[in-house]
Amino acid sequence: MRLKFNPDALKILKATNRYIENNELFNWEAIFKNSNPVHVEVGSGKGGFILQMANAHPNINFLAVEMYPSAICKIVNYQTELPNNLRIICEDITKLVDNFKPNTIEQLYLNFSDPWPKKRHEKRRLTHESKLQIYESLLIKNGFIQLKTDNTSLFEYSVYAMNNYGMIFEEINIDIYRDNRYLENNFPTEYEKKFSSRGVKIKKIKAKFR
Amino acid sequence: MRLKFNPDALKILKATNRYIENNELFNWEAIFKNSNPVHVEVGSGKGGFILQMANAHPNINFLAVEMYPSAICKIVNYQTELPNNLRIICEDITKLVDNFKPNTIEQLYLNFSDPWPKKRHEKRRLTHESKLQIYESLLIKNGFIQLKTDNTSLFEYSVYAMNNYGMIFEEINIDIYRDNRYLENNFPTEYEKKFSSRGVKIKKIKAKFR
Repeated sequence: MRLKFNPDALKILKATNRYIENNELFNWEAIFKNSNPVHVEVGSGKGGFILQMANAHPNINFLAVEMYPSAICKIVNYQTELPNNLRIICEDITKLVDNFKPNTIEQLYLNFSDPWPKKRHEKRRLTHESKLQIYESLLIKNGFIQLKTDNTSLFEYSVYAMNNYGMIFEEINIDIYRDNRYLENNFPTEYEKKFSSRGVKIKKIKAKFR
Repeated sequence: MRLKFNPDALKILKATNRYIENNELFNWEAIFKNSNPVHVEVGSGKGGFILQMANAHPNINFLAVEMYPSAICKIVNYQTELPNNLRIICEDITKLVDNFKPNTIEQLYLNFSDPWPKKRHEKRRLTHESKLQIYESLLIKNGFIQLKTDNTSLFEYSVYAMNNYGMIFEEINIDIYRDNRYLENNFPTEYEKKFSSRGVKIKKIKAKFR
């Protein structure tokens, strides 16, 4: 995503009362004031996906992890008052992992992540082995990763990396828009709508650790 | 493939001197008169792929397994004198497995197999778990299965089935025609040429057993 730097981004986020600092071990019950399951999106961008999810599933808690405050602060353009069951963190997931109590996350979402197409940037891809290790430590047993992308190479790389890591696929889909039954409970962002309407195939992987 | 029954098909095949009967344990050294590695294609159709492979790789022995004599007998329309390193068998692979000495096949090819889209026909798909068991028994350690298809659902099913079986992916490709580097050593059949020229994406999986 091409992004204009917004010097007020953090101020906007803090004013939502949904922003959490990264300086302590996360205690989900204290943060959300309930013991509902927690789902995490890594790389939330402008937050369109996780906001729809949080509105649609009030009994699930959602955490948006997005490195760039200038991106995720745009979430307030969709909805000024953010739902109770949504929290936002601005940090690289690799720097955040020690703040999570292991095996406490029920589902993890990766939506339209940067494909980092150059071989020398492979480690930055959100499905690189080093990231899968992090997700494995975060997820509960049988917790799922759900990935969507328009990018052919990132899809192929992710199937390859998840398979080689030993993950089990629950769903492999290389064109979710070809049949309405694949679109049940699908929450498209503006980006997904734009690209699918142009005929770009939206691909999906749902997988869990062994 | 829609296919016209040819009552002379077996006669044509036997006249090639490349046809083998299924009534005994295959002894590759005796059959090919050398100890070169053996590659098998399951579902060879009209034989266009395996004939190109056999011509291009004289130091590899190739076996075409095709249930329908009326299909594979058309191989003589491409080339009247078939290469020395090619043999043809007409049988369902599931009925043939006891004729193979275990772990003697180096590579196995599945090209544009019937997708059997109906759920009740799942067992007939060439990447159903029951077929993967057969391939595992045929292949040498680190021997590969290479699959190509134009069919989205068969591709997705095969990724899912191979992964769930515990196979390791070496290559996942959902559009081999997007870049010339994926077409090195690619031997397209008439069918593949026709569909790729119409913009249908040709997908490929290369995988091995653990």
